[in-house]
Amino acid sequence: MLQVAIFGAGRISKIHSANLVRQQGVRLKYVVDVHAPSAAALASEHGAQVSDIDTVFADPEIAAVIIASSTDSHADLILRAAASGKHIFCEKPVDLTVERALVCADAVAKAGVTALIGFQRRYDPTFAALKARIDAGDIGVPEVLAITSRDPGAPPLDYIRSSGGIFKDMLIHDFDVFRWILDDEAVSVYATASVLTDPKVGEAGDADTTAVTIRTRKGRLCQINTSRRAAYGYDQRFEVLGSAGMLQAHNHRPTEVEAWTASGVATSLPENFFLERYRAAYAAEMAHFVAALIDGKPVRTTVADGLKALQLAQAAEVSWRERRIVEL
Amino acid sequence: MLQVAIFGAGRISKIHSANLVRQQGVRLKYVVDVHAPSAAALASEHGAQVSDIDTVFADPEIAAVIIASSTDSHADLILRAAASGKHIFCEKPVDLTVERALVCADAVAKAGVTALIGFQRRYDPTFAALKARIDAGDIGVPEVLAITSRDPGAPPLDYIRSSGGIFKDMLIHDFDVFRWILDDEAVSVYATASVLTDPKVGEAGDADTTAVTIRTRKGRLCQINTSRRAAYGYDQRFEVLGSAGMLQAHNHRPTEVEAWTASGVATSLPENFFLERYRAAYAAEMAHFVAALIDGKPVRTTVADGLKALQLAQAAEVSWRERRIVEL
Amino acid sequence: MLQVAIFGAGRISKIHSANLVRQQGVRLKYVVDVHAPSAAALASEHGAQVSDIDTVFADPEIAAVIIASSTDSHADLILRAAASGKHIFCEKPVDLTVERALVCADAVAKAGVTALIGFQRRYDPTFAALKARIDAGDIGVPEVLAITSRDPGAPPLDYIRSSGGIFKDMLIHDFDVFRWILDDEAVSVYATASVLTDPKVGEAGDADTTAVTIRTRKGRLCQINTSRRAAYGYDQRFEVLGSAGMLQAHNHRPTEVEAWTASGVATSLPENFFLERYRAAYAAEMAHFVAALIDGKPVRTTVADGLKALQLAQAAEVSWRERRIVEL
Amino acid sequence: MLQVAIFGAGRISKIHSANLVRQQGVRLKYVVDVHAPSAAALASEHGAQVSDIDTVFADPEIAAVIIASSTDSHADLILRAAASGKHIFCEKPVDLTVERALVCADAVAKAGVTALIGFQRRYDPTFAALKARIDAGDIGVPEVLAITSRDPGAPPLDYIRSSGGIFKDMLIHDFDVFRWILDDEAVSVYATASVLTDPKVGEAGDADTTAVTIRTRKGRLCQINTSRRAAYGYDQRFEVLGSAGMLQAHNHRPTEVEAWTASGVATSLPENFFLERYRAAYAAEMAHFVAALIDGKPVRTTVADGLKALQLAQAAEVSWRERRIVEL
Repeated sequence: MLQVAIFGAGRISKIHSANLVRQQGVRLKYVVDVHAPSAAALASEHGAQVSDIDTVFADPEIAAVIIASSTDSHADLILRAAASGKHIFCEKPVDLTVERALVCADAVAKAGVTALIGFQRRYDPTFAALKARIDAGDIGVPEVLAITSRDPGAPPLDYIRSSGGIFKDMLIHDFDVFRWILDDEAVSVYATASVLTDPKVGEAGDADTTAVTIRTRKGRLCQINTSRRAAYGYDQRFEVLGSAGMLQAHNHRPTEVEAWTASGVATSLPENFFLERYRAAYAAEMAHFVAALIDGKPVRTTVADGLKALQLAQAAEVSWRERRIVEL
Repeated sequence: MLQVAIFGAGRISKIHSANLVRQQGVRLKYVVDVHAPSAAALASEHGAQVSDIDTVFADPEIAAVIIASSTDSHADLILRAAASGKHIFCEKPVDLTVERALVCADAVAKAGVTALIGFQRRYDPTFAALKARIDAGDIGVPEVLAITSRDPGAPPLDYIRSSGGIFKDMLIHDFDVFRWILDDEAVSVYATASVLTDPKVGEAGDADTTAVTIRTRKGRLCQINTSRRAAYGYDQRFEVLGSAGMLQAHNHRPTEVEAWTASGVATSLPENFFLERYRAAYAAEMAHFVAALIDGKPVRTTVADGLKALQLAQAAEVSWRERRIVEL
Repeated sequence: MLQVAIFGAGRISKIHSANLVRQQGVRLKYVVDVHAPSAAALASEHGAQVSDIDTVFADPEIAAVIIASSTDSHADLILRAAASGKHIFCEKPVDLTVERALVCADAVAKAGVTALIGFQRRYDPTFAALKARIDAGDIGVPEVLAITSRDPGAPPLDYIRSSGGIFKDMLIHDFDVFRWILDDEAVSVYATASVLTDPKVGEAGDADTTAVTIRTRKGRLCQINTSRRAAYGYDQRFEVLGSAGMLQAHNHRPTEVEAWTASGVATSLPENFFLERYRAAYAAEMAHFVAALIDGKPVRTTVADGLKALQLAQAAEVSWRERRIVEL
Repeated sequence: MLQVAIFGAGRISKIHSANLVRQQGVRLKYVVDVHAPSAAALASEHGAQVSDIDTVFADPEIAAVIIASSTDSHADLILRAAASGKHIFCEKPVDLTVERALVCADAVAKAGVTALIGFQRRYDPTFAALKARIDAGDIGVPEVLAITSRDPGAPPLDYIRSSGGIFKDMLIHDFDVFRWILDDEAVSVYATASVLTDPKVGEAGDADTTAVTIRTRKGRLCQINTSRRAAYGYDQRFEVLGSAGMLQAHNHRPTEVEAWTASGVATSLPENFFLERYRAAYAAEMAHFVAALIDGKPVRTTVADGLKALQLAQAAEVSWRERRIVEL
C-alpha cells in the first residue's frame, strides 16, 4: 500500500486527493494546510490525518507527496521531499525563479526520486489524442502551432500581485504545450502584452493580454495569444499545421445540445474553467503518477519540463518589458 | 449506512456497483450471480460477499437491491423485493410481457417501496439539459419529436432470440424518451420494420431496422428510426421542434480533435457504445436513486414508466406484424 | 439562337428568366402574365416582349416555354406546348390530380418534346454531391432515409385553400427526393398530420404538420417530417443511412460567422427561404435544361417523375384522411 | 451608359469582366492584353474590342479602367488613368515600393478620380457580416485579432521571384484585414518567417511560412500566421476577441454534406482557392465600384488603404530580414 501526503487543502487539492484515492494500492495518510478547517475537512473526507510538514517528511511510511500548496512553497517542499527520498507530484510552477527551479531539478535528479510537474494538459484526452496523431504522422511534419488560451475572467488583484506575472502564471502551460506538441526547443521568443481588461492590472505591474511568437531550432513557428478575460468562458484551443494537414483541438462543452431559435443556432458555452475542462486530465495525470511509482517507470512531465517552461516564460517577460527579441 | 445487494455481475453490474459505492452512506453488501467467478470478482472489488437470493431477501439489513441480472429474472426479483420491503433499482425492461409488468407495478405500489427502472437516458447531461430547456419554454410548445437510435452492430443471434424483439429490447428506451420529452401519451402507433443487416435476424423472427410513428393526445407527432447497425458507431440523437424553435441532442465524442487533410475535415466518431456514451448518465442515475432513498423522495423513472414504454413496444410490434395502425 | 417564352412574371419567373438569359445561345422572346405591369417589368428587364398564350404557341421561332404561372394553368399549358412541339420547363406540380398529370405525361411522350419538371432540389450542390457519393458507394447500400422539411411560416390562408393541400403543395418535393435518393419505389405509405400552428389551417381542410413513412420494394424505409412553421427559418435537411455509413445534407447559411458570447456559441440562421436556399439549384436546373435542348439529351426531372411524386402525395393524403396504410 | 476598359485578360480579368457586365448601365468597351489571343477571347465574350493603352486613355467615352494586368504595370496605369481623368479599379498591390505607391496616391487625390484597390475580402459576405457585428457592438471593444491565411500550395518559383515576396504578395490582404477589422493603426510590427515547403523558395530569397505580430496605437494585438501550403486547401479564417465576446469567420465549403463512416465524421474541404472562395466578394466589389461611380460616392477600399497595407508589408519584411521589431 502506497502511502501519500498532500500539502494544500484547496480546490485543486480536493481534485488531486479524490483522484489519488481512486487508484488501487494507494492511501492518503496526511493532509497539511495552514488553514486548519480546510485540512480537517479534506482529511476527514478520505480518512486521512491532519499533520504538519516535519511529521510528513519524518514518516518512513510516506512514499510520495503531492505539493498543491501556494507557489512560494513549492521549491522548499520539493527540496525537502528530495532530501527525504519521497516521490513528488508538484503543481506548476516549480518556482517563480529560474535559479531556484534549477536547484530543484538538480536535487531531484541527485535524489533519484520520481517527480511529476502538474502540466495536466498533456494528459487531456483531446490534447493527447491530437499529439498521438502527430506522432503517427497524420499531418506529416509539424510546421506551425497556434495556441489560444483565455481565462473566463481576471483573478483578484491580490492573486495577480503574487502570481509572478501572466507569463509565469498563465502562459507557463502554453509554453509546455508548445514544447510537447512541436517536440522542439525555442531559439527566439518575442512577446508583447497589453492591459485591456482593467487598468489596475497594469498598476500591479502585470498585463492581461499577450501575444507571443516562438521560433524553434528547426525553423518551426509558434504563436500564442492569451487573455485573462473571455466573456464566453474558458477558451483552450490550439491547432498544428503540418506538411500533410492540420489538427485542431477544440473546446469541450458540458452538453451537446444545439438550440435553433429566431436569434440563431447556438451550442453550449465551453466548460466553465480549468477544474471542469481538465477534470479528465487531472484524473489521468494522477493515474499516470501512481502507475509510474508502482511500475518504476519515468513520468511524462518532469521537473526538467517545468524548468524549460519557466525559462520560456522568463524570456517572454523580458521580451515584453524590454521591447526586444530574446535569443535563447 | 444503507446496505445494498446486487443481482448480476456482468458489465452493467460493474458500472452500477462502482457508481453505488461512490455515494456517501452506502455499502454494497452482497453480490449474487449464477456465474460464480464473476460474482466473486465483483464482490472482491468492493469488499462485498458473494451470496444468494434467499439470503439477500432474508437479511433485514438490506435496504435496497439492484436488479441487473438477465431480463427473465426481473419480474420475479421485483416481486420478491416488494414482498420483503426492499427498495428496487431495476434495469429495463420490467418484463417482456405487459401482463407481468402490470403485476410488478401493482406489487411495488402496494408495498410502498421505491422502485427505479433504469431508463438512464433521462439522467444524461445532454438529454436532461434539453428537457430542462423545453420546460423553461425555450422553444415554446413542443410539436414534433424525431429520434434516431442506432447501435454500432447487431448483437449475437442468441441474444436476439431471447431479447423479446427489437421493439422491446432496443426501442423501449426510445419510447420512454418519447413520453418524457413530449410529456404526453400516445393515441396511435404505426410501425414498419425490415431485415437489412443479416437475413438470419429475419429467420429468428425479428427485424433490425424500424420506423415508428406515434401520434399523441395533443396531436403531437413523433418519429423514431432505429437500426441495429451503424458503420460509424453508436448513434443517439433526437430533436424537438416547438412553436418557438428547435432543440437538438447530438452525439457525444470522446475527443474534440478535428483533422483537416486532403481527404476532408473530420471529427472523432461518436462514443463507441452505451457503456461509454451513458457513463455520466449511469452515475447520475445511481446518485439519484441513493438520494431518493435517503431523502424519502420519489424517483424520476418508475415501474409505471417501464410499463408504459412496454405497452408502446407491444403496440409497435403488433402494428408491424399485423400491418395496421394500433389505436391506444 | 434558342427562343423561349415564359408564362408567369412572379418571383420564381424572375429567377428563371435571369438564369435563362445567362445561358449562351438563348433568348427570352416573350413574357405572358395576366398581371400586365409584372409582365411589362420582366419583359423590359430582358429585352423581351409582352405577349399572350396564342401568340406564343403560334410562333414557329419559339423552341421552348417556361411554365411558371399558377398551378391550375400548368396542365393546359403543357398540353398546348406538346401539341405545338415546344419543349417544356414546368414548375411543380404537373397538376393537382393524378388523372390530369397522366394525360400530360402521355401527351408529352407522344409529342416527343423535352419536358423538365422543376424539382430543383435534385440540382442543389449539396444534395447532388450527396447523391453522387451514394452512387459512388461511399455508404454501401442505402437503407434508411430521414427527411426534415420545414417552412419558415405558413402561407396566407388563401394560398392554402387553393394549394391542393400540404402533401401536394409542400411534400411533393420530399416525395421526389425520396425516389431520387433511394432509387426505389414505394410499396406502402403511412401519413399522419396535425394542425398545430393555426386552427384556421384546419378549418380550411388542411394540416400544417405531417409525419410520413414510406416502405419501398427493397424494404428500405423513409421517414419525412414537415411543418409549415419553423421559428428559426427554412429547414431543409436529410440523411441517408447505408450499410457502410451515413450521409447528411445540412442547411446552408448565408455567412460563416460564429459568435461566442456569454449567452452561447451561435452560427447564422439557415438561408431564409427557398429563393435563397435554392438559388444555385435554380441556376443549375436552367443550365441543365438549356444544355439538354442544345445537346438533344434527356432531362433529369421528367413529367414521369412529377407524376410519381403526385401519386405519393395522393396516397399520403388518403392515408391521413382515412387513417389507414395505403398500399401501392 | 458607363464605358469601361480592362487591362489584363487573365483569370482575374475574366471574373471582373463578368461581374462588370452584370451591372446595369455599364458596358465593357476595350480589352487590353499583351497576349493577343486572351484579349480576343475576353473581348469576344462580352462584345468588346481588343485595343491598346493609348487608345483607351485617349478615348473620351471611357469613364473608368480596370487594372488587372501584372503588378509591375499597376503604378504606370494608375498614373495615366489619373492624368486622363479616368476612374480606377486596380487589383492589389498599388506597387511593390512604398515610394511609388505614394506617388500614385498623390496623383489620384489631385486628379479627383475614384480609385478602388481590390481588397476583395472587405466585400466578402462572411467577413462583412462579422465587421458589421463588431460595429454594432456585439462583442464590445475589439482587443485581439488572430488571422490564419494559407494557400493550398506554393506558386511556381518564377511567380515567387517577381512577386515582391510573401509579405507584399500574400500578406498584403491580411494587413488590410487587420486595419479594417480593428479600425486602428500599427505602432510596431514583428515578423519571423521560415522556408518549410521547398528549399528553392529560400534560394529565391523568399519565405513560405510567416508569423507576424502587430501592436496598435490603442494597445490592441494582432497575430497573423500564413503559409504557402495547406494540404487541405485554401484556409482563410480570422477571429476577433472583444471585451464582450468573440467573433470567428470560418472557411466556406462548396457543399454542406457530412459523411459518417468508420473512419470518422467528415465535412467538405474548404472552397479550393481564391477564385471560388471570394466569388461573391468579387461580385460585390464590382457592384460597389459601379454604384460608387453612378452615385458619386466614395469607395470603401482606396489607394490610401493600399498604401497603408504596403507599408505594413514593408515593415514586416524588414523585421524578418533584420531580426528586429519595427516601430512605425
